[in-house]
Amino acid sequence: MATVRYLTGITTTGTPHLGNYVGAIRPAVQASKRPGTENFYFLADYHALIKCDEPQRIQRSTLEIAACWLAAGLDPEQVFFYRQSDIPEIPELTWLLACVTGKGVLNRAHAYKAQVDKNTAAGTDVDTDVSMGLFMYPVLMAADILMFKAHKVPVGRDQAQHLEMARDIASSFNHLYGEHLVLPEAQIDESVALLPGLDGRKMSKSYDNVIGLFAPRETVRKQIFSMLTDSRAPGEPKDTEGSALFQVYQAFASAEETQKLRQAYADGIAWSDAKQLLFERIDREIAPMRERYDHLVSHPAELEEILHAGAAKARQRATPLMSELRQAVGLRNLATLPAAGKKEKGKAALPSFKQYREADGQFYFKLVDAQGKLLLQSAGFGSPREAGQFIARLKQAGAGWAGQAEAAEGVDVGEVEAALKALSDA
Amino acid sequence: MATVRYLTGITTTGTPHLGNYVGAIRPAVQASKRPGTENFYFLADYHALIKCDEPQRIQRSTLEIAACWLAAGLDPEQVFFYRQSDIPEIPELTWLLACVTGKGVLNRAHAYKAQVDKNTAAGTDVDTDVSMGLFMYPVLMAADILMFKAHKVPVGRDQAQHLEMARDIASSFNHLYGEHLVLPEAQIDESVALLPGLDGRKMSKSYDNVIGLFAPRETVRKQIFSMLTDSRAPGEPKDTEGSALFQVYQAFASAEETQKLRQAYADGIAWSDAKQLLFERIDREIAPMRERYDHLVSHPAELEEILHAGAAKARQRATPLMSELRQAVGLRNLATLPAAGKKEKGKAALPSFKQYREADGQFYFKLVDAQGKLLLQSAGFGSPREAGQFIARLKQAGAGWAGQAEAAEGVDVGEVEAALKALSDA
Repeated sequence: MATVRYLTGITTTGTPHLGNYVGAIRPAVQASKRPGTENFYFLADYHALIKCDEPQRIQRSTLEIAACWLAAGLDPEQVFFYRQSDIPEIPELTWLLACVTGKGVLNRAHAYKAQVDKNTAAGTDVDTDVSMGLFMYPVLMAADILMFKAHKVPVGRDQAQHLEMARDIASSFNHLYGEHLVLPEAQIDESVALLPGLDGRKMSKSYDNVIGLFAPRETVRKQIFSMLTDSRAPGEPKDTEGSALFQVYQAFASAEETQKLRQAYADGIAWSDAKQLLFERIDREIAPMRERYDHLVSHPAELEEILHAGAAKARQRATPLMSELRQAVGLRNLATLPAAGKKEKGKAALPSFKQYREADGQFYFKLVDAQGKLLLQSAGFGSPREAGQFIARLKQAGAGWAGQAEAAEGVDVGEVEAALKALSDA
Repeated sequence: MATVRYLTGITTTGTPHLGNYVGAIRPAVQASKRPGTENFYFLADYHALIKCDEPQRIQRSTLEIAACWLAAGLDPEQVFFYRQSDIPEIPELTWLLACVTGKGVLNRAHAYKAQVDKNTAAGTDVDTDVSMGLFMYPVLMAADILMFKAHKVPVGRDQAQHLEMARDIASSFNHLYGEHLVLPEAQIDESVALLPGLDGRKMSKSYDNVIGLFAPRETVRKQIFSMLTDSRAPGEPKDTEGSALFQVYQAFASAEETQKLRQAYADGIAWSDAKQLLFERIDREIAPMRERYDHLVSHPAELEEILHAGAAKARQRATPLMSELRQAVGLRNLATLPAAGKKEKGKAALPSFKQYREADGQFYFKLVDAQGKLLLQSAGFGSPREAGQFIARLKQAGAGWAGQAEAAEGVDVGEVEAALKALSDA
């Protein structure tokens, strides 16, 4: 079975809380251990610059978040764990992709449109407070993904559109320059574990109801003891249904432990005892991690070294692909160009597919022989991807264009088939 | 006298003709020899990708154009001569600048607006055929210029707006992150030597009236002999006024030689003799260059080596500035962050200027002491640049804010002056 590559971007602003741990970090760390997969995790610090112009905060968040993921069990030997800004191929690829991305595509991006709607409602210019970083963000994201030939990108539903854009950008590139980029797929997990916060609503920094992840033990304890419960007295049976405390416990406990707490609820456990149980259960999982977290945060040079090693490992993938793409677009070593006036010798010249767009907005291809003579002319396709897929099938099958393309006048079927065979033999 | 840095971008599409040589290449090569200047010339191949998706053509044009400039006398030892795509700091800086560039600024760029007008006239979507490469082009151009702290950029009038944008982008960056970037100035030469072409109109590929620069000698000869002249017979006096032949001759000849040809016109020189004179005069200047050109084009590995050396030399400038800018925005070595909870020791904490924009659209700054206490509050400035310039003057002078800023309530003038002095001593 072929290796499946997963790629996950990690926002480098803010400090992770228990909700992030249960909803994102822990499942991602678990997923990184699946056999037959390669897993890429990167700290998206170029993206952070779009929203944050406080250098100290970017530096500190990067440190804390990197430490979080490592403390939570991400094994940098097993996965690719790197900082985006350590991979110079990423901004370079961003430029190459920008050149094949229609501006119209980005006009329709949700994040951009949300700001436009806000501006329109406020009666200001539509592009007020829209930086080119914000507008270009889907292109940078495409570069993040395509750089590592990721097959699957676990994202929330709100990011599905950006994934679709990354696919389209990859298709456009492949359409123009050949099949170099892998088309990624969004992996939207609808069943993301949502942890309730202190007040019972979804745990979120914006509700100010979070339980810290690697906050000092005493802080976490106080937060847990401040959880909202009902007013039933010790001895009175309690509902597990709708109990945030119970739900948070369940996110950490085994089935057996959960069953025991359910029984304790029925038996009328005091809220303070239940909170103590919850604190201890969470602490059992988090305490060893906290030790590692505290160590890393107070030894940032160690962390820096891990990130450097991760970048070196990631660049072993990025550098060869970037060379291939530079070659594809024409940013080439000049010494590889045959001297002016000389013809390339040795290799027999091959027929080739040319793809293009017509004024009707459709995508076409033709097959021409080495001298440029037209052999096969396609009908219009709705997208570069469809045209590219058809060509790929044609190359593989060596025939079967009926209905989608026609041999040129005076060219017979055998000639086209011979050309396809020459291509597949090459 | 401080060194003045000039930067010139060289388009890498097409093959230069005699008009390019006289109008751009020759004056630029001459200018590169001025004392007290540093001169940067780069092959703008990332820009070429915006307009050209033919890899072979990009590769061949880069080779021919690089060979042209070197053959025309550009000395890579004396100047910085490099290929844009060999400087990975340029796309990275492009991203950093994108994050401080308002999209609204680019909406107003001439090249983009021209395409929008065309689309509007054609009744299609305004962004038809607008790639993000085209839209982002002024940001890439700003990165090209700011990367090397260029003071002056010789450009045509049509590029003046892009230079203004580069200044604004640099101002925005400096406003947010401190004075790291040098604000460039356009140097618009109104008296560019325009060479007439074979038909008397301006020499231009689009008129198909060009004389080749390093085309084979016989081709150039034939082109010159096909120049349009009037029908006066040998022996009849001829007008120098309006004679394309005379004008082209003048662009190559000394004053004395020009005077001689003027006399020959008056004496009724035959057009064929005049053409022969012109051919010989041009050939005298170009022949030695052609030899060098032919050598380079047929030894692309040599050229590649020159470009590599040029890139290494240019990166000696780009790499330290990029480190400085990464530091400024917060893409920092994590080990330089003081461990959590610890305070930086040793250095006395300094007052600092904070710049920001208010809802009224104006730009403000304040001076705060190390503990964040407000010392000085500015009035609004029309642009970040004005605010930045005022701060720079204030830092230098150590006083003189009256009318533009006010000491905070309860803070006396001496305290502000002491803070300014602490800053200038640091």
